[in-house]
Amino acid sequence: MKRREFLKKAGVGAAAAVTASAVNAPYVIAQKKYNWKMVTTWPPNLPVLQTGAVRFAERVKEATEGRINIQVFAGGELVPPLNTFDAVSDGTVECGSGAAYYWAGKTPACQWFAAVPFGLNAQGNNAWFYSGGGLKLWEEVYAPFNVIPRPQGNTGVQMGGWFRKEMNSLDDYKGLKMRIPGLGGKVVAAAGGTVVLLPGGEIFTSLERGVIDATEWVGPMHDLRMGFYKAADYYYYPGWHEPGTTLEVMFNKKAYESLPKDLQAILDAVAMETNMWSLSEFEAGNGAALQELITKHKVDLKRFPEDLLAGLRKLAQEVLEEEANKDPMARKVHDAFKKFKAQVGVWGSVSEKAYYDVIADEYKLKM
Amino acid sequence: MKRREFLKKAGVGAAAAVTASAVNAPYVIAQKKYNWKMVTTWPPNLPVLQTGAVRFAERVKEATEGRINIQVFAGGELVPPLNTFDAVSDGTVECGSGAAYYWAGKTPACQWFAAVPFGLNAQGNNAWFYSGGGLKLWEEVYAPFNVIPRPQGNTGVQMGGWFRKEMNSLDDYKGLKMRIPGLGGKVVAAAGGTVVLLPGGEIFTSLERGVIDATEWVGPMHDLRMGFYKAADYYYYPGWHEPGTTLEVMFNKKAYESLPKDLQAILDAVAMETNMWSLSEFEAGNGAALQELITKHKVDLKRFPEDLLAGLRKLAQEVLEEEANKDPMARKVHDAFKKFKAQVGVWGSVSEKAYYDVIADEYKLKM
Repeated sequence: MKRREFLKKAGVGAAAAVTASAVNAPYVIAQKKYNWKMVTTWPPNLPVLQTGAVRFAERVKEATEGRINIQVFAGGELVPPLNTFDAVSDGTVECGSGAAYYWAGKTPACQWFAAVPFGLNAQGNNAWFYSGGGLKLWEEVYAPFNVIPRPQGNTGVQMGGWFRKEMNSLDDYKGLKMRIPGLGGKVVAAAGGTVVLLPGGEIFTSLERGVIDATEWVGPMHDLRMGFYKAADYYYYPGWHEPGTTLEVMFNKKAYESLPKDLQAILDAVAMETNMWSLSEFEAGNGAALQELITKHKVDLKRFPEDLLAGLRKLAQEVLEEEANKDPMARKVHDAFKKFKAQVGVWGSVSEKAYYDVIADEYKLKM
Repeated sequence: MKRREFLKKAGVGAAAAVTASAVNAPYVIAQKKYNWKMVTTWPPNLPVLQTGAVRFAERVKEATEGRINIQVFAGGELVPPLNTFDAVSDGTVECGSGAAYYWAGKTPACQWFAAVPFGLNAQGNNAWFYSGGGLKLWEEVYAPFNVIPRPQGNTGVQMGGWFRKEMNSLDDYKGLKMRIPGLGGKVVAAAGGTVVLLPGGEIFTSLERGVIDATEWVGPMHDLRMGFYKAADYYYYPGWHEPGTTLEVMFNKKAYESLPKDLQAILDAVAMETNMWSLSEFEAGNGAALQELITKHKVDLKRFPEDLLAGLRKLAQEVLEEEANKDPMARKVHDAFKKFKAQVGVWGSVSEKAYYDVIADEYKLKM
């Protein structure tokens, strides 16, 4: 019995051609498997940031029934943390996870997709990405590098940082040695501070010994874990420098485009799912950790004085204009961001802000 | 050549058994298709609410390569809008979309999963669902009905509503005829108002003719579309009665559980994706629509007076306690909700609220 006759006798029609190929190469056509690598900028097990990248990979595996299997490497395990973008760009790996401001040296425009001092909060950033053209612009910025970005998480409003001295006015930044990266760091430098860059593992000791006077990190959940309350007396809010930092997943363009449409759709859906999950984890985790910091560790929570914030804000506008002038793409992104911020701004003031005002007395800090 | 010999010669090993079955019944094993129906509580084409349900179905189709094909019926097209829950529960359809407070007559506990007056906002509700045990409780509440819920959207803080007279104190609710459903309506009734229920299509005319004195609807994007600014002079904020209303997708338990794990994971991921997309659409769309209402239609935007809000808030607490006393499950949900609200509350006051305060002057209403 010839192969063709067998197939005929098996009673299958048009579908048989496909199935016949499947016999020669089982699963290859319908169920091709993709074994991918992901590198990240985060230390192993860093809650929500690294665990979010790992969760992304797990959910992709579940939703694709293992057709996409992503092996996740924390920062330094395969490439140095800050080589993540390059590794995705040149195809060393198929995907990566980090935050866009790390790539400011490659393209200044990327900074608006992570955290803008006095910029949009999480809800505003997501609205910009998904419903205001922000993600399209972000894709345009990464396109020359063959990288496709997706929002993958958001820290929410961060804390202002840990200080060994009280901050009473903008003048107190003069000579202040602070660990603060990104655009926020540029604003602190413009205020007369000395911006220090330190690997995560060296921050606590530097703060404790007075090598630095201040540091910001993330929010209560991560700050508690770092033990900063043992090294500095003043914990300031709000995090004007990172009011809703976006975390990213990046795909190598060729790798992403080699996937069938259904698998692309799954990657996109799981990225958005992880984005939502991440903000929820931060909100719930920061709530619990802040209570522990206040009640158990008697942390002195302080709001930055109004004048100091107003001064930083003016400097931030100058810094942003400077960055926007670096190239036409940065200018385009800055202008689009500002326009969208104005679009949602008045709405924010009568919705979220007005509502927070109404319920504010339930939330009085007990210190 | 016998079939077994052919397969052997084709050089396939263990995988052949599966492939052989595939020859007899192509695609059936690996690629079973599910043709589902979804009914919703929304009118056809209602932005974000109905179009979000349609988007959910489209994305599920893309991500499953058509293995799940959901035909969406707007309210009344297959079953009356408020029969959605029953239709999912009894298996008439495999899934539905609505908001949980519509099912208060079946189980009072469901109300906490849609909108709680003076309760959590969108960010808080999502944190509760995904990272604070809220979704597990919701599943428990729907389990006796063989329904599995997932958050599928969020309106953000709604507007307080359209009024034909100025609201200066709580006393102004006495005798006020207002269209306001759910727990918010119970609070207005407790304040002495007459709560009127009207189908969406009759609200505008009733307001215009003075049959009702006031109505709430959603937010600027939907309110603009309804033309309420032509029928009432005062547009109040904030929407204390619905500070972050959750929209839901519901699955018939048997239908959901009949799916392989990968398809369940896709439904869950796309539900979370749609949730994130929905809030983003509301944020961006409300921002643009509010500007149009203010600048083009000269709408008089007013904040509810402090004392009036304080009075409603006290009544809301009483209404919630009454509802919680209706059965043990409602009590359990109310207590869990309150506990989580307290957990994130102080954090909200130093993060989102504090940040909105800082940038408030950018957003001054020009009226």
